[in-house]
Amino acid sequence: MKFKAEITVMPLKEILDPQGKAVTSSMKNLGLGEIQNVRIGKHITLEIDAADENAASAKVDEACKNLLANLIMESYHFELKAV
Amino acid sequence: MKFKAEITVMPLKEILDPQGKAVTSSMKNLGLGEIQNVRIGKHITLEIDAADENAASAKVDEACKNLLANLIMESYHFELKAV
Repeated sequence: MKFKAEITVMPLKEILDPQGKAVTSSMKNLGLGEIQNVRIGKHITLEIDAADENAASAKVDEACKNLLANLIMESYHFELKAV
Repeated sequence: MKFKAEITVMPLKEILDPQGKAVTSSMKNLGLGEIQNVRIGKHITLEIDAADENAASAKVDEACKNLLANLIMESYHFELKAV
């Protein structure tokens, strides 16, 4: 079966997000001062062939842990959909 | 009212995503060859003060169009939640 995964990787709350801070400041200059606390992470989509949803989930988890997310600075979660 | 927005910005389907291609190749080296067609975009969270959900939605849309997404190469969608 083929699955599509939607993965979100975000900087941990405890960790300063300089890119997000810079964008928050830019919002003011754009007249959007009511926007605050911008945080920027990654959104990753991928396709995976697996026997069932559990197998696909284990593989995506492995990919997140080993390549897509840096667990010292980031957290991740994902959703799987059969396609 | 305060709202939290979850914004996803992805490269358009028609556009080559070199970062995604590189990650797809790396999957093979990690023994995860069943993972294909990786695409990498941005996930952005922010907080916004607005009178109601419609006003918040209009502001977030403006922020996406003017700063967060490059509409020539990327598409975006977002969800709002009252907090």
